[in-house]
Amino acid sequence: MLKSRNLVQPEDFSIKEIDEILDLAQQIMANPDKYSEVCKGKLLATLFYEPSTRTRLSFESAMKRLGGNVVGFSEPGSSSASKGESLADTIRIVSGYVDIIAMRHPIAGSADEAVKYTEVPFINAGDGGNQHPTQTLTDLLTIKTLTGRLDNHVIGLCGDLKYGRTVHSLVKAMNRYNDSKFVFIAPEQLRMPGYVKQYLKDHVYYETASLDNAIPSLDLLYMTRIQKERFADLEEYELLKDCYRLDADKMSKAPENMLVMHPLPRVNEIATEVDNDKRAVYFQQAKFGMYVRMALIMKLLGVDVEE
Amino acid sequence: MLKSRNLVQPEDFSIKEIDEILDLAQQIMANPDKYSEVCKGKLLATLFYEPSTRTRLSFESAMKRLGGNVVGFSEPGSSSASKGESLADTIRIVSGYVDIIAMRHPIAGSADEAVKYTEVPFINAGDGGNQHPTQTLTDLLTIKTLTGRLDNHVIGLCGDLKYGRTVHSLVKAMNRYNDSKFVFIAPEQLRMPGYVKQYLKDHVYYETASLDNAIPSLDLLYMTRIQKERFADLEEYELLKDCYRLDADKMSKAPENMLVMHPLPRVNEIATEVDNDKRAVYFQQAKFGMYVRMALIMKLLGVDVEE
Amino acid sequence: MLKSRNLVQPEDFSIKEIDEILDLAQQIMANPDKYSEVCKGKLLATLFYEPSTRTRLSFESAMKRLGGNVVGFSEPGSSSASKGESLADTIRIVSGYVDIIAMRHPIAGSADEAVKYTEVPFINAGDGGNQHPTQTLTDLLTIKTLTGRLDNHVIGLCGDLKYGRTVHSLVKAMNRYNDSKFVFIAPEQLRMPGYVKQYLKDHVYYETASLDNAIPSLDLLYMTRIQKERFADLEEYELLKDCYRLDADKMSKAPENMLVMHPLPRVNEIATEVDNDKRAVYFQQAKFGMYVRMALIMKLLGVDVEE
Repeated sequence: MLKSRNLVQPEDFSIKEIDEILDLAQQIMANPDKYSEVCKGKLLATLFYEPSTRTRLSFESAMKRLGGNVVGFSEPGSSSASKGESLADTIRIVSGYVDIIAMRHPIAGSADEAVKYTEVPFINAGDGGNQHPTQTLTDLLTIKTLTGRLDNHVIGLCGDLKYGRTVHSLVKAMNRYNDSKFVFIAPEQLRMPGYVKQYLKDHVYYETASLDNAIPSLDLLYMTRIQKERFADLEEYELLKDCYRLDADKMSKAPENMLVMHPLPRVNEIATEVDNDKRAVYFQQAKFGMYVRMALIMKLLGVDVEE
Repeated sequence: MLKSRNLVQPEDFSIKEIDEILDLAQQIMANPDKYSEVCKGKLLATLFYEPSTRTRLSFESAMKRLGGNVVGFSEPGSSSASKGESLADTIRIVSGYVDIIAMRHPIAGSADEAVKYTEVPFINAGDGGNQHPTQTLTDLLTIKTLTGRLDNHVIGLCGDLKYGRTVHSLVKAMNRYNDSKFVFIAPEQLRMPGYVKQYLKDHVYYETASLDNAIPSLDLLYMTRIQKERFADLEEYELLKDCYRLDADKMSKAPENMLVMHPLPRVNEIATEVDNDKRAVYFQQAKFGMYVRMALIMKLLGVDVEE
Repeated sequence: MLKSRNLVQPEDFSIKEIDEILDLAQQIMANPDKYSEVCKGKLLATLFYEPSTRTRLSFESAMKRLGGNVVGFSEPGSSSASKGESLADTIRIVSGYVDIIAMRHPIAGSADEAVKYTEVPFINAGDGGNQHPTQTLTDLLTIKTLTGRLDNHVIGLCGDLKYGRTVHSLVKAMNRYNDSKFVFIAPEQLRMPGYVKQYLKDHVYYETASLDNAIPSLDLLYMTRIQKERFADLEEYELLKDCYRLDADKMSKAPENMLVMHPLPRVNEIATEVDNDKRAVYFQQAKFGMYVRMALIMKLLGVDVEE
């Protein structure tokens, strides 16, 4: 039963519950008009203590496409936090106004703090480097819809695997399904941390520094950005960055059904020449993000279409 | 007749008109679904020339819970004011777009200026240190709903009574009802100004510097914040601040039915240990604020449920 | 057929298509309730990479008065652009969320870039000094509604004719109708550029530096602001500015049916004493802007009232 629950991290929901959400998202995609009024009279608060346009617009579009409405703020400057109000108080007050809350916050752990005080369902829309569970749901919906299954994939994750919360969450989530193999593609200093690899007890994983070598064997390639700031030695960054940039040449070595995913925003880790390759699904993925949020909001509010 | 009227200060409405608004707010609280479409097709502008998240979200939630919609801005940087447009011009233009305006402005008197130019009902959502009439309506609704009456109370007001527009307005408003007694609890340098006390011709008031001494006799305790900036001598502030901080110890001396109110945001003038005391009603008070704004908007727009 | 089209510059639409939009706007003005739900379930994105309150509120009010809804941002700081995302990517992502986009951008040519990537109808809400086609539609609706025709006018354009995109667009638009005469009223250093005058092959135009001399002969006077920054020599600015300031004295020399228009915001190029002159129609003009955007949105979405 998902009604009235909170979502702080993907593991808050069972596999069965996640399946329920993904199934509903697929039903919405198949027939969006049927759902265009299910949240009529309902109010979502989007409390964004740091800007994140895509995530905010995705949540707000989701709620409005369900016939609901939205109040909120998009940056801390326009929030009461600047007057010294505690997160606890803001959450208590706002949950008196609305039916459901989505919060983005720069500090890891703030979502755990917020759920202590909310009186309505709460969704973590990203808390610092910690968790971003609706991105994980987006990734799962993308994989399930475009490949037909969540198990038995060879998944390459490429880029900054050390700091990337998105890839950590995805690995933990995919680990709950059977028979997938993971290929971690990263430079030495940005390798997947041990505590993430420990989750993969029943799954095979490989590590490599070469995207060129790994790409021919992949079903899915999940790209992330390598940030210049992560390197003490800028020369090293300059030397490495092109190895982790996906372009048409690298795509020519990839299987013809391999999907390229990316949580976006993309800067230059994927050349724009790849955008028109039918295997590049990252813009579709963004759209799936809106649908999975529609399903999530419906489940937490306990609303459904009347049959 | 409240239709098409403006609200700049609480005294703009008669006691009878305020009663009408409070009555409607109570009806909405009792049956919110009945009112969920009364403002369908109507548009509220929230023009916030300084950020005030709670007040803005309260207004926007109110309008959306009535089925109406909202346009606006939440800080001056994104307003035409930064291009040198006068307040008069902005009000004239916006009142061509919308059905009702709520404005927050840092300069005292700007609401008086704005009503000269509006062509639609106008609500002052706070103009500098001057007026904040919907906070007063919120306070009245809280008192009336939780105690059953607006007369015959012993009301303690504690903290910064010199500069606090909220307490000045509340005193003036409560003075219009019979038989209340006021206890002004403040340090010497932040005492209630003479011009406010003059309003209380027919009411008894007491002044004291001791919250501890006053608290056993109160029906209502209205707390406000003492700002460090008000003190020339910081040592004096450090010496005084704890005397005006409400905690469990002080609450143990209070009557068992005394209500604790606060306009929020609260910083540290009320210890969080008080939050779970059933007499602490400040979060409820915030929620009452949304309902009284729903009633106010309905009255000024002249809309009602069809019977 | 306007459905699914983009509007980057006024010339993107034929005269016949512009007439369709103006006609629909007039029908909406005559009976707004009839159109209050035609965009139910539709979503507009307002992507404002620079603040422009009036334009944004006008678009958002327009969409909401049609029963549609809006998502977006009002300044670049809260957009993904600050994370280095390209305009192309933002447009691709957002067009996965919404049904129609209105974009304001400080860089000339960015609207041309955006339409390459949008999958939904796109409206240029101003791209730097380049184009602002919905202002031109607003001007045309104002002239047509208040004078009954778009041809055969003597149109004075006064102020900064060198840099003003609004006047350039209006001249090009009015040039498509018959028999109008243009009077360009500007100081030497801010005269109408040659490339704009070249459009006027079949129309007569005059140039003068004197508003006083020109005003008695005009049917329409379109005022714009002269910015101090345009002058290398500030003394020259001080000397000139009053000649181009419209006041009651200058209005006394104008024909009794001459209309005064202004794209707003107005700073001091029109004295406030002119505001109550019945010939001053610039606040009405702002309201016409909302109605013409309602008509434009309906046409591009291909929605209409059911008869």
